[in-house]
Amino acid sequence: MMKKENQAPTMKDVAREAGVALGTVSKVVNDLPVGESYRIRVEEAIRKLNYQVNTYAQSLKADKTYTVALLLPNTQNPYFASLAHHINMTLSRQKYRMLLCCTDFDPASEQEYINMAQRGKVDGIIGLTYNPNLVIEEGTPFVAIDRSMSPRFPCVASDNFAGGQLAAEKLADLGCKNVAFLRIGSSLNSETNKRRSGFENGCLSRGLSCEMKILNDGEPFSLFKEFLREHIRGGKFTFDGIFCVTDRLAWLIIKALGKLGIHVPEDVQVIGFDGIRYFGDEDYICSTIVQPVQEIAEMCVELLTRESLSTKPPLVCLPVTYACGGTTREHTASLKEDAETMEIP
Amino acid sequence: MMKKENQAPTMKDVAREAGVALGTVSKVVNDLPVGESYRIRVEEAIRKLNYQVNTYAQSLKADKTYTVALLLPNTQNPYFASLAHHINMTLSRQKYRMLLCCTDFDPASEQEYINMAQRGKVDGIIGLTYNPNLVIEEGTPFVAIDRSMSPRFPCVASDNFAGGQLAAEKLADLGCKNVAFLRIGSSLNSETNKRRSGFENGCLSRGLSCEMKILNDGEPFSLFKEFLREHIRGGKFTFDGIFCVTDRLAWLIIKALGKLGIHVPEDVQVIGFDGIRYFGDEDYICSTIVQPVQEIAEMCVELLTRESLSTKPPLVCLPVTYACGGTTREHTASLKEDAETMEIP
Repeated sequence: MMKKENQAPTMKDVAREAGVALGTVSKVVNDLPVGESYRIRVEEAIRKLNYQVNTYAQSLKADKTYTVALLLPNTQNPYFASLAHHINMTLSRQKYRMLLCCTDFDPASEQEYINMAQRGKVDGIIGLTYNPNLVIEEGTPFVAIDRSMSPRFPCVASDNFAGGQLAAEKLADLGCKNVAFLRIGSSLNSETNKRRSGFENGCLSRGLSCEMKILNDGEPFSLFKEFLREHIRGGKFTFDGIFCVTDRLAWLIIKALGKLGIHVPEDVQVIGFDGIRYFGDEDYICSTIVQPVQEIAEMCVELLTRESLSTKPPLVCLPVTYACGGTTREHTASLKEDAETMEIP
Repeated sequence: MMKKENQAPTMKDVAREAGVALGTVSKVVNDLPVGESYRIRVEEAIRKLNYQVNTYAQSLKADKTYTVALLLPNTQNPYFASLAHHINMTLSRQKYRMLLCCTDFDPASEQEYINMAQRGKVDGIIGLTYNPNLVIEEGTPFVAIDRSMSPRFPCVASDNFAGGQLAAEKLADLGCKNVAFLRIGSSLNSETNKRRSGFENGCLSRGLSCEMKILNDGEPFSLFKEFLREHIRGGKFTFDGIFCVTDRLAWLIIKALGKLGIHVPEDVQVIGFDGIRYFGDEDYICSTIVQPVQEIAEMCVELLTRESLSTKPPLVCLPVTYACGGTTREHTASLKEDAETMEIP
């Protein structure tokens, strides 16, 4: 067969020019370990022939695309935005590219992306979805974030139970006696349920009296306002601490409290959950249980790309931390502790 | 040639099964217009043969990958996060996938992504970069955001000059007389320079006295604090309005003012630039000139994907709007206007 003069050089041409096997060229091109002298010969041949690595053709040959799809509702929510960033950076360090697939909570769009990912033979999918009916083919490399899709696929999340417990312990340490737990969200969200259970547990062990107010998806926020108003008795707010299931809810509640003339943290201390910061990297928006976003990202990539793991854990919970964000009275509490110490010489 | 029994069906097999030309199958698979009866026959054949569309093989054939690379410093900054979201959604509506390429401001990483994109034959690149030395091959479909890379590539930005002017006009409308412009950032950032020029222009036309304080990259934030402190005379802050070049700077300045006992908006009104909201979609963090992120996203995709455009505009500026975010005195101003109107019957 005659080779046209103007035809682009192929990987085979490079192998012939370098006098090495085709697999050696593939290894060099894919940044896989290969003897240094071979690497030099292949790189010289690539330069000489002006061979352009075609990543997609490469994918077909090696049956690997070095591409991972990340399924997220959006990147406007700061928690999702931070996940996207850390997963992108982690994949990039391992020479993987990342297809961002924002779904805007649309189940059809989520399924379409899953199908696309399966068709397009990406090496795997990392997904955060609220869709329990998503169909993911058996054997698809899939890692879920925050919400387990099925025991067949590993899920990476914060230790939500410990986070709830930590919130209760912090409020107790900060002098609270009567606390509330506020939550909005669907019952499907099992990881979020753990925040409540952990908080209840912490309240019990620390002797805090705790009241729950849980709204289902679709119920109006005004029900929370009513709940708060009902707990003003004789001009005084009966709660001295509130744990909200997310920072966003904490922020909304603090705004509502302000309108009722209740001051945070003077009258009531508020802790949220997520660890959202102003502009992504400035102060925390409120006192909060911080999700370890970078560790979650790294664990997702690890579980997806390590083929050597014969059994993958169905659920990995990563440790959370507490951060003061100005809606709790750390300073006052420590002053009080000092004072108490001085009273008991 | 014998066809192995267990070999995956190809596009050719589908064409043979459906009794149509290969090009017709390609059109159906790529969602391009094709007669309805042909579409039905092809889809039936795809189902019958259990043909899996291989998007990458497809890309090679059609010389189109239906993939666009988005180059951003990160997705943690809410403005970048919002850009990523809207560009992703816009591309997805047009059946394009998006490779997210976070560079963390690293020039080497930016160049690597550009090279990767050229090698991997994505259909184009949309990039926001602060790197003036980036090498982009002539003819690469590239659209810049916010900062022009070269007249060879179109750039999409907010109308930054009009935004600066609008900020001055708003402060004038809100009763300010002595205002300041604060900025931090490199001189390379020509689009940001326009915010200053527009503001100066607005101050001139509205008779506002204006003082500038501009820090270069690397200069410490404490210089701003000093500047603010120097302008407290006889216990009174001499500025009644401040325009900050970004919402982030506005937020930092408001925090610094608070520590000096200067209240916003009572003592001084502050306007930022960007339109950043709490949690991406709640209240604005401060009064602000809002960038039209969705329109910027749509224009980038339009300029990248419309091959029919024979000449692409080097710079497209999209209109900004003003939003009150609680750091200006809209309510007081309108009351005052009412009062004035009543005084002159």
